[in-house]
Amino acid sequence: MIKVAVNGYNVIGRRVADAVALQRDMVLVGVAKTRPDYKAKMALQKGYKVFAADDRAVKAFEKAKVSCSGLSKDMSAEADVIIDATPDEIGAANKAMYSSLGKKAIFQGGEEHEVAGLSFVAQCNYEKAKGRQFVRVVSCNTTGLCRVLNSLDESFGVTKARVVIARRAADPDEIKKGPIDAVVLDPATIPSHHGPDVNTVLPNFPVITMALKIPTTHMHLHSLIVSLKEKSISEDKIIEEFAKTHRVMLVDSGEDGYKSTANVVDYAREIGRPRNDIYESVVWKDSVKVIDDEAYMFMAVHQEAIVIPENIDAVRAIAGQESREESISMTNRALGIFL
Amino acid sequence: MIKVAVNGYNVIGRRVADAVALQRDMVLVGVAKTRPDYKAKMALQKGYKVFAADDRAVKAFEKAKVSCSGLSKDMSAEADVIIDATPDEIGAANKAMYSSLGKKAIFQGGEEHEVAGLSFVAQCNYEKAKGRQFVRVVSCNTTGLCRVLNSLDESFGVTKARVVIARRAADPDEIKKGPIDAVVLDPATIPSHHGPDVNTVLPNFPVITMALKIPTTHMHLHSLIVSLKEKSISEDKIIEEFAKTHRVMLVDSGEDGYKSTANVVDYAREIGRPRNDIYESVVWKDSVKVIDDEAYMFMAVHQEAIVIPENIDAVRAIAGQESREESISMTNRALGIFL
Amino acid sequence: MIKVAVNGYNVIGRRVADAVALQRDMVLVGVAKTRPDYKAKMALQKGYKVFAADDRAVKAFEKAKVSCSGLSKDMSAEADVIIDATPDEIGAANKAMYSSLGKKAIFQGGEEHEVAGLSFVAQCNYEKAKGRQFVRVVSCNTTGLCRVLNSLDESFGVTKARVVIARRAADPDEIKKGPIDAVVLDPATIPSHHGPDVNTVLPNFPVITMALKIPTTHMHLHSLIVSLKEKSISEDKIIEEFAKTHRVMLVDSGEDGYKSTANVVDYAREIGRPRNDIYESVVWKDSVKVIDDEAYMFMAVHQEAIVIPENIDAVRAIAGQESREESISMTNRALGIFL
Amino acid sequence: MIKVAVNGYNVIGRRVADAVALQRDMVLVGVAKTRPDYKAKMALQKGYKVFAADDRAVKAFEKAKVSCSGLSKDMSAEADVIIDATPDEIGAANKAMYSSLGKKAIFQGGEEHEVAGLSFVAQCNYEKAKGRQFVRVVSCNTTGLCRVLNSLDESFGVTKARVVIARRAADPDEIKKGPIDAVVLDPATIPSHHGPDVNTVLPNFPVITMALKIPTTHMHLHSLIVSLKEKSISEDKIIEEFAKTHRVMLVDSGEDGYKSTANVVDYAREIGRPRNDIYESVVWKDSVKVIDDEAYMFMAVHQEAIVIPENIDAVRAIAGQESREESISMTNRALGIFL
Repeated sequence: MIKVAVNGYNVIGRRVADAVALQRDMVLVGVAKTRPDYKAKMALQKGYKVFAADDRAVKAFEKAKVSCSGLSKDMSAEADVIIDATPDEIGAANKAMYSSLGKKAIFQGGEEHEVAGLSFVAQCNYEKAKGRQFVRVVSCNTTGLCRVLNSLDESFGVTKARVVIARRAADPDEIKKGPIDAVVLDPATIPSHHGPDVNTVLPNFPVITMALKIPTTHMHLHSLIVSLKEKSISEDKIIEEFAKTHRVMLVDSGEDGYKSTANVVDYAREIGRPRNDIYESVVWKDSVKVIDDEAYMFMAVHQEAIVIPENIDAVRAIAGQESREESISMTNRALGIFL
Repeated sequence: MIKVAVNGYNVIGRRVADAVALQRDMVLVGVAKTRPDYKAKMALQKGYKVFAADDRAVKAFEKAKVSCSGLSKDMSAEADVIIDATPDEIGAANKAMYSSLGKKAIFQGGEEHEVAGLSFVAQCNYEKAKGRQFVRVVSCNTTGLCRVLNSLDESFGVTKARVVIARRAADPDEIKKGPIDAVVLDPATIPSHHGPDVNTVLPNFPVITMALKIPTTHMHLHSLIVSLKEKSISEDKIIEEFAKTHRVMLVDSGEDGYKSTANVVDYAREIGRPRNDIYESVVWKDSVKVIDDEAYMFMAVHQEAIVIPENIDAVRAIAGQESREESISMTNRALGIFL
Repeated sequence: MIKVAVNGYNVIGRRVADAVALQRDMVLVGVAKTRPDYKAKMALQKGYKVFAADDRAVKAFEKAKVSCSGLSKDMSAEADVIIDATPDEIGAANKAMYSSLGKKAIFQGGEEHEVAGLSFVAQCNYEKAKGRQFVRVVSCNTTGLCRVLNSLDESFGVTKARVVIARRAADPDEIKKGPIDAVVLDPATIPSHHGPDVNTVLPNFPVITMALKIPTTHMHLHSLIVSLKEKSISEDKIIEEFAKTHRVMLVDSGEDGYKSTANVVDYAREIGRPRNDIYESVVWKDSVKVIDDEAYMFMAVHQEAIVIPENIDAVRAIAGQESREESISMTNRALGIFL
Repeated sequence: MIKVAVNGYNVIGRRVADAVALQRDMVLVGVAKTRPDYKAKMALQKGYKVFAADDRAVKAFEKAKVSCSGLSKDMSAEADVIIDATPDEIGAANKAMYSSLGKKAIFQGGEEHEVAGLSFVAQCNYEKAKGRQFVRVVSCNTTGLCRVLNSLDESFGVTKARVVIARRAADPDEIKKGPIDAVVLDPATIPSHHGPDVNTVLPNFPVITMALKIPTTHMHLHSLIVSLKEKSISEDKIIEEFAKTHRVMLVDSGEDGYKSTANVVDYAREIGRPRNDIYESVVWKDSVKVIDDEAYMFMAVHQEAIVIPENIDAVRAIAGQESREESISMTNRALGIFL
């Protein structure tokens, strides 16, 4: 059993803690938080040990009479692996603590590549992570792109990928973030950072990204335009490959009625996924079009959830014995991912 | 075992079918739909029999190669009670069919009171529904209001209630409805229809409502201003009463951090409610204020889910032996409602 | 000619500068800004002198090669009256500078009442401002409410007003502010600060306010419930009084088609108001309803514009000879306000 | 003087009527409407003759006591040119009436190309419209694209253009349209109709478009990826060309602060454009990037306004003596367009 601690308990931390608790080969040491709010109380209800991020947090827990099992540092000392899901750049600051305890740790995409030295997407480079002390799971958009671009590249060769990312501007409960009625160029300069971030996982992959921020809370929407090396590839051939690719889900806007990101979220609610989470890169089957050896398609990425299976696989990669396929299969089964 | 059929399988129908399937004393005969879309396929995946709404629907199912067990009429013939969750005014049209089959049926708040002759909120008038052929479960806003206003009236007496309802303009997957960036007076004339609708459940209750439509998808938000008969009632006394009232949930914006409807939805995702459903009238504890014998408070209503427990109780009221308290308790236990 | 300087050049400052430039008895000394952005360039295009807020701003202007006529302090020294339209609490900090220069100044509603000692709405207390050194123009919601409540009180007597304010969460170009899809209780505690702020203008006026923040950018929407002293007042009588009240505009949702705040904005675009500004408190005529001596109605407030005429009147009140009626009439004519 | 009638008085009709009234060589015969709402009343206030769309409309005007000068047909009989700004497909139905009266007419992009036989963007094919009876001004997105793509093609040669269009889902006063919080693939199939529509103006131009609908009301946002024939073109060279292209406006996200479509709208409000209209294709200067002979850039299109100058030029093309440059220059001067 791998003992896993989760430091940070917001969007990613909460999901990753539940996902750890569902794995047969892992045990959740606890979660660390800064505030004794309803999320802390519900973690306790779920039977998780809750630790305080620092001394100030300890006092806040005491004042609110919410039980707390010690400091984040104490929690880390009990673990084999710490999943750091703290806000951007806090992870980098925590690295020294993990190092001094001689612990392995997983960072999120908000940290620089250099913090861990290896940026991770399970189906792209699982084996490289084996035995490492630190691994960084890349951000949601990068994860979604790596799966699909890597699949296209392995099957047909990619000579250039161009991607326009319409980003959801805030998570559902980030009530202070906007815009409310505008498109923000984020950044106005091109390329955006997403392309280079893909290259931390897939070195030298030829991809250029443009990014917009739009007033939605539920999913990022990617428009892909991919030049293929192999000529005269049919749409059906691409769809066939995706149907075999791990964590790529195909939907259809026609009969099936997936006409928007809202329908994908509705699907997740319907199928009973916890928090209506969608772990897959969602590709519209009927959007796949090849014109003059350029493949076009739409893909949606659930920003809150897509990196959860990667975090679990990263734990196994650095602490376990399993191969890539074994780990992906174990993670998928536990989380209800079909492929 | 009460045999229940669900006619209509959109926002309410889907939830009510799952809720029926969770009751120990009910069995789901099947659900009826017009289109063989992803919702139909997932109903089949859940093991529900799917029936076609009419002949045209049968053809659509055949064309799409989605299995269908007959017509909605066939389904109704097999049931003891039909829950009609079809769109507004279709329920009224279906009544003749239910009558000719000699079946009991439950209609939703989109139908006129006269269609059923009894408008129902479990904790207000369960006993009146016993043995009836037809009952109408009132709409989400009316249900939410009846619970809270009835509680205040029984405890302290209400001489006048004024309510401003800021309505979510569309459900999460209603992608064609707006507004995107405006407040719609819906209607601009005052009072809105919600007050009179409360009176179908609580006759002569003195309530006047004003209604706005705003660009959100998740919950209605009520601002209540209630004149109390009993004098010098404290806020704590009101909160105490709510804490004892069925299906009223108290939240706090302070330490607990419920600062918006988004946090309430987040709570439902966190606690693992299916489709992040909130069956309770959600009252902000720290908003309750009494000034000159007028009680002020905020309440949120989850439009997709609040009537689900009422539909279940309505089935028991017209077809079962249980008393109000027994039914509410059985429904609550099955749905994970604490009170 | 009253020499007026405008310190701060964002939402209010820009409008107030243009409004000053339109008055026959005022001359615009200049405007002060912190950043040499497109707004600065357009101020120069309009022929306004642009001053830098402080030394850091001077450097930014130099670097961007945008012309700047000195410091905000220099600008103030040239003026008879400074309209301070800097962000909340900066005005209070600027007061010492205005004092030391022996200048009169007008502050906005983001400052505390105590900064100026007199909180101002032209038609409520113009005469009290005469000759003063400092005046505070109250915020948009308070201004809108004071006009309408004062009118009702003078005509019929008001024994209690309750107001639910659905606030636009951000201005159209505030792209970082949300929420995107939620109702924020702002604050969750009742009463909100708006009622007490009305009392800085109308002492002891019996008003209680509740405030929500909603995902719109264009107008605040007030739902008013007002108990009248005089009995059996008809709706027509109230509408008649509003039709005579300065800066209250009546619209109708029926034939005329004003069904939302969007239509009011559309009206302003159609009539050619600069920046589609609406200076009036907009009351829906067909929403006015009297039930048991309580008057109900909807009112919209354009947060960017409603205080502009008040700022102009405040200048005349502290620096000019005109009476309230003279000033209001001069301001209205210059800004295209009908009454 | 060219006598111009405007049939239809909503988004386009209202603007085009005002634009006609501003031209020195045109006179506005009147406008035709279906409803006697506030827009009709304001047209009368502006001194426009208002005609009724049909007999039913006549009765509605009479009932509402709003003055009406006859039928749309009567108006057309008085005109040299009719600008048809009626809703999609109504224009096609009106064509027979214009034909039987022997009148020239201009249709909008909601009509099929075949209705007019010539699809028009002034700087692309003005001369082809000379002397014709019917011309179709293409839709907002097509107009915006034609200007920019034609400029790139004439200067550098374009071998392929790929465009992702993030469409505003509704106009500011279309309060019934959504989505509120989703991205709608519109259509999910690729290419969208926009590319072929460009080809009605620029035959065989190699362009492929993908379209999303997003919850904003103010501008469409295009992400362009354009392969250039000429090699090693610098970004500065492209910007230089745009700076010389009619009705292309360059903005900058850096110092100038145009970080979103909201800032562009704010600019239009600031500069005093009627209804904050933006007639230009707005290109972000600092987004222009050339990588491997592919030019990337962001462009915004104001859906309500961009076709207004084209409509005016189309009138002159079919009814006047002016050359392309003369007409564009006259239109620009009248509307305050710099180039």
